Amino acid sequence: MHSERLLLGPGPSNPYPEAVEALTRPVLGHLDPEFLALVASTSERLRTVFGTRNQLTLPVSGTGSAGMEACLANLLEPGDLAIVGVNGYFGQRLSEVARRLGAQVRTVEAEWGRPIDPEALLDAQRAAPQARLVAVVHAETSTGVRNDVAPLRELQDTGTLLVLDTVTSLGGIPVQVDEWGVDACYSATQKCLGAPSGIAPVTMSERAMARARDRRQPVSSFYLDLDLLEQYYQGSPARYHHTASSPLLSAVHAGLGRLLAEGLPAVWERHARSGERLQDALPELGFELLAEKGHRLPQLTAARLPEGVDDATVRTALRTDFGIEVGGGLGPLAGAGWRIGLMGQNARERPVATLLGALRAITG
Amino acid sequence: MHSERLLLGPGPSNPYPEAVEALTRPVLGHLDPEFLALVASTSERLRTVFGTRNQLTLPVSGTGSAGMEACLANLLEPGDLAIVGVNGYFGQRLSEVARRLGAQVRTVEAEWGRPIDPEALLDAQRAAPQARLVAVVHAETSTGVRNDVAPLRELQDTGTLLVLDTVTSLGGIPVQVDEWGVDACYSATQKCLGAPSGIAPVTMSERAMARARDRRQPVSSFYLDLDLLEQYYQGSPARYHHTASSPLLSAVHAGLGRLLAEGLPAVWERHARSGERLQDALPELGFELLAEKGHRLPQLTAARLPEGVDDATVRTALRTDFGIEVGGGLGPLAGAGWRIGLMGQNARERPVATLLGALRAITG
Repeated sequence: MHSERLLLGPGPSNPYPEAVEALTRPVLGHLDPEFLALVASTSERLRTVFGTRNQLTLPVSGTGSAGMEACLANLLEPGDLAIVGVNGYFGQRLSEVARRLGAQVRTVEAEWGRPIDPEALLDAQRAAPQARLVAVVHAETSTGVRNDVAPLRELQDTGTLLVLDTVTSLGGIPVQVDEWGVDACYSATQKCLGAPSGIAPVTMSERAMARARDRRQPVSSFYLDLDLLEQYYQGSPARYHHTASSPLLSAVHAGLGRLLAEGLPAVWERHARSGERLQDALPELGFELLAEKGHRLPQLTAARLPEGVDDATVRTALRTDFGIEVGGGLGPLAGAGWRIGLMGQNARERPVATLLGALRAITG
Repeated sequence: MHSERLLLGPGPSNPYPEAVEALTRPVLGHLDPEFLALVASTSERLRTVFGTRNQLTLPVSGTGSAGMEACLANLLEPGDLAIVGVNGYFGQRLSEVARRLGAQVRTVEAEWGRPIDPEALLDAQRAAPQARLVAVVHAETSTGVRNDVAPLRELQDTGTLLVLDTVTSLGGIPVQVDEWGVDACYSATQKCLGAPSGIAPVTMSERAMARARDRRQPVSSFYLDLDLLEQYYQGSPARYHHTASSPLLSAVHAGLGRLLAEGLPAVWERHARSGERLQDALPELGFELLAEKGHRLPQLTAARLPEGVDDATVRTALRTDFGIEVGGGLGPLAGAGWRIGLMGQNARERPVATLLGALRAITG
């Protein structure tokens, strides 16, 4: 038996009660018509949160990292050029995943804590129009920075695909896959979608799937081959590929149901309000926010610790005395700052009050 | 809300109640000391069921198919030779996964329903001692056949590694990784281990890990890189890699706890007894067993349907009228036979009686 936690780190967040309850529903076989109907309904809910009509919208059986790898592995072949925006840990990871797949990677960088200039990404593509794709992180989990995506819609007029990481953004701030001309997009379920981790929602445009089907050689990963996953989840009859987990999928389906019943605009507003509350209060306690106003994520706040506050000591006290998890800093904030998440179920007044109260009790 | 099922297909089976209960324990962060302790305890339980002392014994965040890919992706580099035993669907898949990773594949085949001659695998290695690995499926889920593994221990005296698929065997029949000289072994949690799907137990010998660390180029998959997974799960401090799912891991840990409390020999005996009961009864109903005695799996029985029994009609009636799932046939039994699983929680008298009673009611 283990402890209760108020999960205010960079994810997982505490799932919605409906998602937890759904975990214990009867297990279904991976080819059961009721299971395939659950997949279809989950895909439809995912289309709504992604803001897309893409037919290929699927729950991949793995965490958000598997979603990243699925998008790149299906679209890149050895030797292809990938342009990657890097202003934090997950941009770096995009580069590494692309390199391991044999791609050449050109990075467009910005300082950690600052947004990437979309014009710089577009310039990089203009200088290398043969690039297979431009990949960028919407919400950098390492720094709490939101990168502008809408201007990248211009890539639709080129032969270069747009790949977007929405692991920390989906369900927390607006994501508009079709409106922004995003060709491939992946996310995770344990952050603003309010379910446990283990599923990576993935969506791909028709033009991206056409490219994937037109590959010179098969995708190196059988497990993440989206064409095979489409034949499994959307084929008629469904073609066996792997044994998808019905408890996990039930939880994701239920979490999405809860989110959509509240309504995306209301959920975004709730994230915005609780994030603002936290970001107003932290400087009063001596914290210094990393991201600049205008590109600050409400659902994930990176902040430098006040003078004299020891990272490990205070984080341990939060965990052991108050059952609260916050995330350690990365990059410029490693050992010197935190990442505080207010996601899904936790994007509310009470978790903010609980955290601030505990902090005052420990440091004050 | 979806239906109750008695899961008598090739997996998933119905999880142990302890595993289902554990799904709803409080979610822990993926770097929480309590979570890492849960991982360590799960690894220790996995060592017991695998029959190994391998330090690298881990729950990979994906289904059994991800476990297969993890083993091959870490051990194979483009151009390497892989010798693969093929006497069913999963041997074929091993070949395909190896080919996608850029390996040359030499297959050693046996008819579907017959075991692979281990001498033929050893001969193939003698003829090609430069082979990086020999891969074989212990329990072919497509045909219900057990392949002999112990004689392959001889490979320990060569430079060729032994990779074993125990997806359907682990927890159902004896598996002895160290005694048999297996270098890399993967399984799945939703069959004889009695938990939901979504985790692939993987274990690797020291000599296999040395090979993996000595690669000329990094593993093409970041998500399945076992060196990175080791740094995450066993590193000090743990190094972030992905957001492992604490509900799933709790369920697997609890399922393994239940299994080990009963004791491996008792669990194997339970699988043997219920399988024998089913295999004694099926011919009386006109079914013809595919595998020959001596290489027949108790936990998974493939059988040709009696004359005049229509596959789709009767399987649908089982599912809709009795809430029972059995698996369709593959290969020689496609449309003409079934695969019936008695795994984990379902390796008991009652599921056998329930299935036979329902079959008599439908066909009789």
